[in-house]
Amino acid sequence: MAKNKQEGFVTQIASRQEDFPQWYTDVIIKTEMVDYSDVRGCMVIRPYGYRVWELIQQKLDAMFKETGHQNAYFPLFIPESLLKKEAEHVEGFAPECAWVTYGGEELLTERLAIRPTSETVICSMFSRWVQSYRDLPLLLNQWCNVVRWEKNTRPFLRTSEFLWQEGHTAHETLEEAQAETMQQLMTYRDFMENVLAIPVICGQKSEKEKFAGAHATYTLEAMMQDGKALQMGTSHNLSDHFAKAYDIQYLSKEGKLAHCYTTSWGVSTRMIGGMIMVHGDDRGLVMPPRVAPIQVVVLPIAMHKEGVLDKANEIMNTLKAAGLRVKLDDRDQSPGWKFNEWEMKGVPVRVEIGPRDIENGQVVAVRRDSLEKMTLPMDGLADTLIQLLDDVHEGMFKKALRFREEKTVNASTFEELEAGVQTGFVRANWCGDRECEDTIKAKTGATTRCMPFDGPDADPGSRCVCCGRPAKHHFYFAKAY
Amino acid sequence: MAKNKQEGFVTQIASRQEDFPQWYTDVIIKTEMVDYSDVRGCMVIRPYGYRVWELIQQKLDAMFKETGHQNAYFPLFIPESLLKKEAEHVEGFAPECAWVTYGGEELLTERLAIRPTSETVICSMFSRWVQSYRDLPLLLNQWCNVVRWEKNTRPFLRTSEFLWQEGHTAHETLEEAQAETMQQLMTYRDFMENVLAIPVICGQKSEKEKFAGAHATYTLEAMMQDGKALQMGTSHNLSDHFAKAYDIQYLSKEGKLAHCYTTSWGVSTRMIGGMIMVHGDDRGLVMPPRVAPIQVVVLPIAMHKEGVLDKANEIMNTLKAAGLRVKLDDRDQSPGWKFNEWEMKGVPVRVEIGPRDIENGQVVAVRRDSLEKMTLPMDGLADTLIQLLDDVHEGMFKKALRFREEKTVNASTFEELEAGVQTGFVRANWCGDRECEDTIKAKTGATTRCMPFDGPDADPGSRCVCCGRPAKHHFYFAKAY
Repeated sequence: MAKNKQEGFVTQIASRQEDFPQWYTDVIIKTEMVDYSDVRGCMVIRPYGYRVWELIQQKLDAMFKETGHQNAYFPLFIPESLLKKEAEHVEGFAPECAWVTYGGEELLTERLAIRPTSETVICSMFSRWVQSYRDLPLLLNQWCNVVRWEKNTRPFLRTSEFLWQEGHTAHETLEEAQAETMQQLMTYRDFMENVLAIPVICGQKSEKEKFAGAHATYTLEAMMQDGKALQMGTSHNLSDHFAKAYDIQYLSKEGKLAHCYTTSWGVSTRMIGGMIMVHGDDRGLVMPPRVAPIQVVVLPIAMHKEGVLDKANEIMNTLKAAGLRVKLDDRDQSPGWKFNEWEMKGVPVRVEIGPRDIENGQVVAVRRDSLEKMTLPMDGLADTLIQLLDDVHEGMFKKALRFREEKTVNASTFEELEAGVQTGFVRANWCGDRECEDTIKAKTGATTRCMPFDGPDADPGSRCVCCGRPAKHHFYFAKAY
Repeated sequence: MAKNKQEGFVTQIASRQEDFPQWYTDVIIKTEMVDYSDVRGCMVIRPYGYRVWELIQQKLDAMFKETGHQNAYFPLFIPESLLKKEAEHVEGFAPECAWVTYGGEELLTERLAIRPTSETVICSMFSRWVQSYRDLPLLLNQWCNVVRWEKNTRPFLRTSEFLWQEGHTAHETLEEAQAETMQQLMTYRDFMENVLAIPVICGQKSEKEKFAGAHATYTLEAMMQDGKALQMGTSHNLSDHFAKAYDIQYLSKEGKLAHCYTTSWGVSTRMIGGMIMVHGDDRGLVMPPRVAPIQVVVLPIAMHKEGVLDKANEIMNTLKAAGLRVKLDDRDQSPGWKFNEWEMKGVPVRVEIGPRDIENGQVVAVRRDSLEKMTLPMDGLADTLIQLLDDVHEGMFKKALRFREEKTVNASTFEELEAGVQTGFVRANWCGDRECEDTIKAKTGATTRCMPFDGPDADPGSRCVCCGRPAKHHFYFAKAY
């Protein structure tokens, strides 16, 4: 039995060690992040979960705008003929499209896909809007819902409908498209590390794993606490593939007509699933402070005693005025019940204030990540807590990084690879052939995650971990969500 | 010919007098607010239009949260069986649903409607979440896309897909539901008047015009410059109709099981169409300052002269620091070309700065709404402009109110009603019978807009404007979008 169960606290949550999938389900349902719906494969995002998404949106959106991107909105529906213009793309996405065939009582003459991603509809608009080099670069982003008809679904991680942003840009040259692709990948990395406190490995996808229709796909991979990988986001250099299929041409400074080079990049509500699986523990959620719906919960102790509730309110107002997201819990339940509740919900810092604390001009604070308890002076409390939340962020990031490093091994034999992917990530040399990639997948369940930027080339003279022929690349392999 | 055409300025925009629908189309397309898409009845909202929506969302969302509402997200798809549980509701909405029948290659066993509105799917979740009076009131809101399969579409005003927010709440009593319905209606009114500068008439819809499944529907009606009405938003008291259909029951303080009372309320991207048709003129858009993507455009005059561009940049930075949305236009084009461009785009205030102005420590400012030109001291410019933008807002609101009042008449005969709805709104006494409502619609093209809060009762002893029998209500009639 997990410790928390012995203590009789969070009896409803499975332990991570015993049953990680059940732990995940328990956490997301019991904390009211999400609920199942009557619609196959679709989730309901409840206020506590949606607030995280709102905070993610606010922060990412500001980052996109700082680099000159503007938001727009494109139709939900994609006519089948439009989807089919880019051959690789339709092959990749058509099998998982939901199709509208009736509008009211009327059978449609052409069926409409619900967008699985919007390259097709956006590129067809770009072809109208881009005339000359003066119109470039065109830097757009869209926040929306998309649908991919999935067989096995899990809230946040893989659902038939999900929320995301998709950036779409057009440029004069392949080099500019590549620079944009990298810039956005690095924006994501910055966000994941410095906002979600999740360390990520950045690199390039294999040919097999790249986006349907892309020239090159770059990815950010994070390790979950079961050692599996979660692809947290991707950024694609589409070269002129879509520009040619959708006829996006511009007149250059020199008066020549040429095709554009486009990119696309996206992250989704899936990140919330990653955040939960990276940071959570057997008591429940551990929210990274910068997207925590509630950063500090204030709990009055011996609430009926004179002055306690007033003081708690005063503290809440001071903290709110300092820009913190604070909740005062003045419900009837016992302090123990409330500790449990807010621990389960992962609030980064709990502040307790009772008659003795008021006398002494102090509060008791408890960090959710380490459960460390400390006494803090009431004077300057807001500043102290702002610093403490930064410390919590740092602590969570370092803990996750340490975990990943401990669970990452180098493999030079197939047996080492097979053993390594049972518990974490494996770095190995690979010939680059699809056949070996398929063999590894079939025999171990692991897929190529990426060719990392910090060491993409095979070790000199090394051999492919699968076939033993000379190796070309250094790749991460892992089981993945 | 309109004055602007004689001046050779905005040659592409039809005049409002000559062809209001064409004027509207010209304005929204030329200013790059929207574009048509390859998808029947669906619009593309371009960055300049979408920015207005973002500002609308920010402000409304803050208002909803202030009154205790939280955001959530519910599925796009509604299984047909779920939609059918409330009889009136399905009758109203099924004919305009888009239906998904295939997921990938697989024919679905039950077809899925794309949500035309989400009472059904949200109420089915409420029935799980609401157990006791402690769970009430439940105050949720969702920002999302919805689809209604429309025959005749026009960007913003009526499109197959549109963006909106839909609030859904559950309460213990009918009275509480009514109070919520009214509170949200008044929030909308506040927003429309004090943010969009659009005067609205608030009142109750007739039985015929109310929301499918509602107990009572309340509306906000605005007059466009062609004298037609646009329904800007609605708020519905759903009584226990949906709670009974979807089994939302709670255990009261007294230990009794009872059905909840629910409400729903929504506004959409349609408001942007209203904003354009209320405020625009023959030069193009006139943006209300509080949602204008650019509030102040700074135009350097004789840009090549030393110090001009530096000063323009300095001014821009000062204004930005004061929280204004500012753009510096330092492109190569002539000042005349730029004046035209930014007038067309409706930027509330244009600030011109040239060598002479710099010498004199002043700028020239031009209001978009009145085209009034003024000289303003550089000292304290930000504060002056903030005040000026408030004046512009006030001016726009008053102008729109005056217009509506001038185009509103009281009718005591059918002929007066028929004449009045050619150019504006008509107030008339009505018996309340559906038959008269239908007759008026058939003969004049006008519909009942609402029974206004400031005078819902028929004048004492008055007769129905249609049938001559004793009148019950005082109603607004108008042609409408």
